[in-house]
Order: sequence, then C-alpha cells, then structure tokens
Amino acid sequence: MNASIQLPVLKVKDDLQISSVDTIPVEEPLEIRLAYYDGGVYTSRNLAVTMRTPGNDIELASGFIFTEGIISHFNEIEKSEYVFAACSENKQNVIQITLDKTAVPNLSNTERNFYTTSSCGVCGKASINAIRTANIFSGKSGDKNTVNSNFFLQLPNRLIDQQKIFADTGGLHASALFNQDGRMLFVREDVGRHNALDKLIGACLIDHKIPLNNSVLLLSGRASFELVQKAAMAGITIIAAIGAPSSLAVSLAEEFGITLVGFLRDNRFNIYSADYRIKMSSHENSY
Amino acid sequence: MNASIQLPVLKVKDDLQISSVDTIPVEEPLEIRLAYYDGGVYTSRNLAVTMRTPGNDIELASGFIFTEGIISHFNEIEKSEYVFAACSENKQNVIQITLDKTAVPNLSNTERNFYTTSSCGVCGKASINAIRTANIFSGKSGDKNTVNSNFFLQLPNRLIDQQKIFADTGGLHASALFNQDGRMLFVREDVGRHNALDKLIGACLIDHKIPLNNSVLLLSGRASFELVQKAAMAGITIIAAIGAPSSLAVSLAEEFGITLVGFLRDNRFNIYSADYRIKMSSHENSY
Repeated sequence: MNASIQLPVLKVKDDLQISSVDTIPVEEPLEIRLAYYDGGVYTSRNLAVTMRTPGNDIELASGFIFTEGIISHFNEIEKSEYVFAACSENKQNVIQITLDKTAVPNLSNTERNFYTTSSCGVCGKASINAIRTANIFSGKSGDKNTVNSNFFLQLPNRLIDQQKIFADTGGLHASALFNQDGRMLFVREDVGRHNALDKLIGACLIDHKIPLNNSVLLLSGRASFELVQKAAMAGITIIAAIGAPSSLAVSLAEEFGITLVGFLRDNRFNIYSADYRIKMSSHENSY
Repeated sequence: MNASIQLPVLKVKDDLQISSVDTIPVEEPLEIRLAYYDGGVYTSRNLAVTMRTPGNDIELASGFIFTEGIISHFNEIEKSEYVFAACSENKQNVIQITLDKTAVPNLSNTERNFYTTSSCGVCGKASINAIRTANIFSGKSGDKNTVNSNFFLQLPNRLIDQQKIFADTGGLHASALFNQDGRMLFVREDVGRHNALDKLIGACLIDHKIPLNNSVLLLSGRASFELVQKAAMAGITIIAAIGAPSSLAVSLAEEFGITLVGFLRDNRFNIYSADYRIKMSSHENSY
C-alpha cells in the first residue's frame, strides 16, 4: 500500500471552482498481534489496532511493543511479519511479532487500557507512576547530552525538507531524531503522531540504537503526555516540539529529567523543563 | 480543574533567554464508566480512559457513548456524575453514566477495539461496515442541507474568535457547529481532537439537537477517519476541516454522502465528496 493517494477534488477559491486532483495521506487500520511462548505452546493475541499511514509497519509494531513496555530489548523479538486475516482485502493490515521462546512479555498493561492498571489509574500521578515502573532507562546518571540554544532553531526547516509525504499532502505528523551535531538520523511520518514516534523508535530499536540518550527528538506538532511517555521509554533526554506541550507532558518531563522544548518556530522556543542541557549560544560556538 | 495552567518557562529568541510564565493546556486522564441494568442488578464497567482537557466532562462522556454506538438516544441516560476512585488526588477524573433500567447498551464494539469486532476488522471496508451497522441516521432521504461556497470562507476566523483556551495557550484542537446561516451554535476545545468532537456532540445530545443534519461541522485540524465516523453517528452532513483529510475519511464521507471540505484556509478550500450541497456563491446571494 502507498502512503498517499490521488483523488479527484473540486478546488474553490473565492468564486472560482476548478476540478483538479489532490494527493492525500492514506489512513488504514493496522492490527498489531503478539505471538509468545507460554506453557509449552505459542499463543497469539491482538494487542492493538491503530489507524496509521502504511509504510514502516514492522518498525511501528516493534516500536509500539517497546514503548508500551511489553518488551524491553530488541533481542526478545524472533520475527516480525505480515499475516493474513479472514478478509481478502486485508493484505498488509496485520503485523504479527513473534517473541523468542525465552522472552516473557509484560502484558499487565494491555489487559484493558494502559492507564487503568495502577491502583488509581486515572490521575496524572498514577499514569506517571506506571511509566516509572516500566521505564528501563530512567534515573541513570552520567547524562552528558547538552546542546547549544541555537541548535534548535534550524531543526524545523530540516524536518520540512525531509517530510516527503507531508510535502505531497500537507497532512502528516512527523518525528525526527537528530544527533548532537544537528544531523538528522531518522525521520518517520504518519497520520497519527503516536504512530510516527513508534515508527521512529521502532527503527532505532531494530538498528540497535536504544537508548537514545545522546540525541534530540523533534515533534512536528504538540507534545502530549503520550509522546513524552514513549520518548522516555526509549531513553530520550531532549524533546523539542513545534507546537505546545500539555500540562501532563511537562509533569512527566520534569519527573524524568527530560528537557522539553515547545513552540519551536519563528526563530524562538520555550524551555519547560531540565534547562541545564541547553547552553546559551554565542556566535562563536554555534555548530 | 482548570483547562489551562501557568508554568514557569525560559523563553529563548536568538541569543536572548528570558524567564517568563507560560499558559499551557491541561491534559488529564478521564475514565468513562457505564452503569447499566442487567439481570436484575446494576453493573458498572470501565469503557475507556481518554487523555483530555478538563471541562465539559459530562458532555465528553455522553458524546463518547453516543458516537461509539453504545447508546442511540439521550433518553437512555438516567444520570451522569463524577464518581470517586481509590486515589485521593483523583477528584474529577472519573465520570459514570448510569443508563435507564430499560436501556440495553450495545457493548459489542467495546470488548476489544472498535475496529476489531467485524469479521475482518482491519481493512477500511470492514471499519466502514461496522459504522454502517451502527449508524442510525445514514441513508435517510430528504436531506436539504445546502450552503453557498462563500459560507465556508469566514468559518476559520469565527472559530479562532471563539477558541478561548487556544487563545491563551496556542495548543488546543476545536470542533464547532454552525447553522445554515453561519451562526456558531457550539464550540468545544480539547488537547485531543476526538475529545473536542465528543464534547460538541455530547452537548448537542444533552440539548436534544441530534440529528445534526442541518448544520455544518468545522474541525480545527485534519479530518481523520475517526472524526468523520463520529460526525456520521450524529447525522452531520457537511464537515469542513482546516487541515487535510485522510484517505479513509474521504472513503467514509463518500459512503455516507457526507460533504467533506478540507484545507479551508487562505480564502480557499477543497471539496472531496458530495459537492452537490455546496452552491457556488455570487456576490448577491452570499449570506
């Protein structure tokens, strides 16, 4: 399946109406299934169905099971593949991840909703507690990830340069990962912001790049709790969002010592947490 | 709880760094519980936990159970109220909707994921089929909802005028409902676009305004499948989005004869489906 399709459209401007063709992003459901060894046999179960833009589906599924805390290392995955469902139309809409026989998936959070499993389940503190338990990188010392303040200013244009599907359609979220020299390492796009980030983290997982503690994550839109949570699971220490952060995103970033930058646009930005990682730039020491 | 909070922030522009205060949107989990009469007793169960901006929570919960097809009429609801959970912090994060004793909720789609319940479950066609079954307004004839093309051009500015939290924070999605004269009837905001629409539809449900077949829905961002699905459930026949539509949003709009307008900005827009509801405006007959 393609990431975008062309459709007939009527374009209206003022009193003019023109028949034309428009390129729009594809949105299709992806079922993520997990097969794991339990009691001498392999069991397969549905974990989630997400509405995503086709492409990088194995990264998406791998990233999802990692950022949701179901696995904690790439070597727990034996194989990832498209599997068939009952419907003939359904060729590439189910990914099954098969774990190694020795892997024990943490499915406690998947029984109902991720946020409903702690004793309370529905206050921000409980949500953060659930992540604190699952996060394998939090609290590690020796973090040396620092960047100059003008590091951030060029990121939005670099992202736009690389957003291939967005350039065609004007309609996709993106997540991009930069190293400390400002080089873009990965970029992934999707109609769902959480999918774009799961694809990115999944790509890093497959490439044995986790934890991502010496890099900077750029989000094309707003920074929600869910995105900061997923980034925290991958050990990311600096997040920059072109849009606004939410209150719970800031709380979570503070809790995990993640540097959270928001409103990164028009040559300016705001720092919401852990500002010690950002050095004020002079013209001499900018990268 | 408030919809926005003030937080200390470092504002950086070029080489200047200023300590300031920023207003950001609040994001908190809301658990939606349903209590229904079954086998001579009331049973209460968790339906969903959504990350939302506090405010209009009863509308959100009511809209959610309606747009997900769990109830089909407002009179199935006996009462809606905040209930307490185990955590003391958690004062307004659980809404319980209690159904009338005679109401029979349709919980078939809530057992796992909405999209996984049909025979296939993970192709766009199956998703659309699931909605076709649940939608109580589709296929009704006699639709007389038409507007002039220049009707749309003023909607974005009217929305911005009314987006109170967005004006403070720059970070919220909105859904707004207009009548055929261009008057804004309702507007609701949230960090989640689906929540903004559920709040709007919930408000209409509580106000006995469903079906909304003589109005126009304006979405502040992109038009996804999920948003068109929720609008379809409320009988909405014209949807205008300031952002791009997705492929599956267009498919669903075509299937239900919903007029879908996208990229409504800078005095122009695109019509993706059911263009017969939009009359080309002349300067004489514009509203």
